[in-house]
Amino acid sequence: MRVEIWSDIACPWCYVGKARFEKALEAFAHRDEVEVVHRSFELDPGRAKGDIQPVITMLTRKYGMSEAQARAGEENLGVQAAAEGLAYRTSGRDHGNTFDMHRLLHFAKEQGRQDELIQILYRANFAEERSVFSEGDERLVELAVEAGLDADATRKVLADPAAYADEVRADEREAAELGAGGVPFFVFDRTYGVSGAQPAEVFTQALTQAWGERPPLQLVEDGGAEACGPDGCAVPQH
Amino acid sequence: MRVEIWSDIACPWCYVGKARFEKALEAFAHRDEVEVVHRSFELDPGRAKGDIQPVITMLTRKYGMSEAQARAGEENLGVQAAAEGLAYRTSGRDHGNTFDMHRLLHFAKEQGRQDELIQILYRANFAEERSVFSEGDERLVELAVEAGLDADATRKVLADPAAYADEVRADEREAAELGAGGVPFFVFDRTYGVSGAQPAEVFTQALTQAWGERPPLQLVEDGGAEACGPDGCAVPQH
Repeated sequence: MRVEIWSDIACPWCYVGKARFEKALEAFAHRDEVEVVHRSFELDPGRAKGDIQPVITMLTRKYGMSEAQARAGEENLGVQAAAEGLAYRTSGRDHGNTFDMHRLLHFAKEQGRQDELIQILYRANFAEERSVFSEGDERLVELAVEAGLDADATRKVLADPAAYADEVRADEREAAELGAGGVPFFVFDRTYGVSGAQPAEVFTQALTQAWGERPPLQLVEDGGAEACGPDGCAVPQH
Repeated sequence: MRVEIWSDIACPWCYVGKARFEKALEAFAHRDEVEVVHRSFELDPGRAKGDIQPVITMLTRKYGMSEAQARAGEENLGVQAAAEGLAYRTSGRDHGNTFDMHRLLHFAKEQGRQDELIQILYRANFAEERSVFSEGDERLVELAVEAGLDADATRKVLADPAAYADEVRADEREAAELGAGGVPFFVFDRTYGVSGAQPAEVFTQALTQAWGERPPLQLVEDGGAEACGPDGCAVPQH
């Protein structure tokens, strides 16, 4: 089974939701046959690369929250994160454009390092005092190396704005086609969806349903096929 | 969309079928949104690693063909391959166990090099005078390096019979669950199947159907979700 997770590095519920999903996956009997793929979704695609703000400022200006509301929201996220065993800095974080990180996640996918990289990016952004926005490309290189990627190859990807850009856009188009208006958004074998950081039980239900209810394949052309099997390679008489 | 192709390096129809599928994919409007994954299937899993035979001998002993039938079958494959622009040696090839190659293909998948490696293995086995069976591990290392893999990392995988063995077995179990008794076997988004090296038109039909008839996702839990969207991060009142 394949689970696709649309998310953004700047999305705290994605950070928390991933842990809830993983708790369900860990306990799922067929976990070794589940492949997880991360898909790109930008919460703030219109923000210029250099336009960085403290999270609290962004929340008040962009979403019209009062500062007290913004701070209370962050405190609540800290509590929810802690319940999943995750560290969360409720103050001092910043916010910016995540396009380059999504490009790197596609590069990491090619190298079999996508899950490592997204986890390291989340941790740097939400738990550690290592901004993924305000330290420039070299911070991203540092994190990519921790995920097992090559430093120079990472620099090359970052220096070329076209590298993996189509892949990011394709993921975002697919999210829209699947009806995902927000993230995290989980898709199980393109059959079942889970929207948001639902409790682990909901992910367990989705895994179980998607596993159990897979309909039989429809063969497109059931005629004689040129194929090889345990009894040799057949050339059917059409 | 995701297309999974179950095949074996020792399967000539897999070699030909891949080219027919790729012809259809090349002409498919949404080809950039199609991901191809190669899955393991062994035609001859009971054969010991060192048990290598000329293909003609294998065909006569294992499948009870006359030598003339076996040679005619190979000639026919040569004609079918040529029609797809593929070279095919109709004599002098050998046959053996492919388990190690499947393990390497899973290793290559992690490195984003799976399609390169399978193509190189096919070419060595079917088109070139480079046996993938009788030259030992170093031939496989040579081919893996051509596919962009690291020589020492490849040697390490080959030296450890457990490396990626579970992944090969999991693919084979899934093939059985999906009803694939022979290869090549193509699965489109786990919805449509194509069995055998069908003409390109059948693959076009499968791509088009799988693309067009994707049913809408069923949301497992439609209640308020802790999610972030263009309007901020919501904490719904449950």
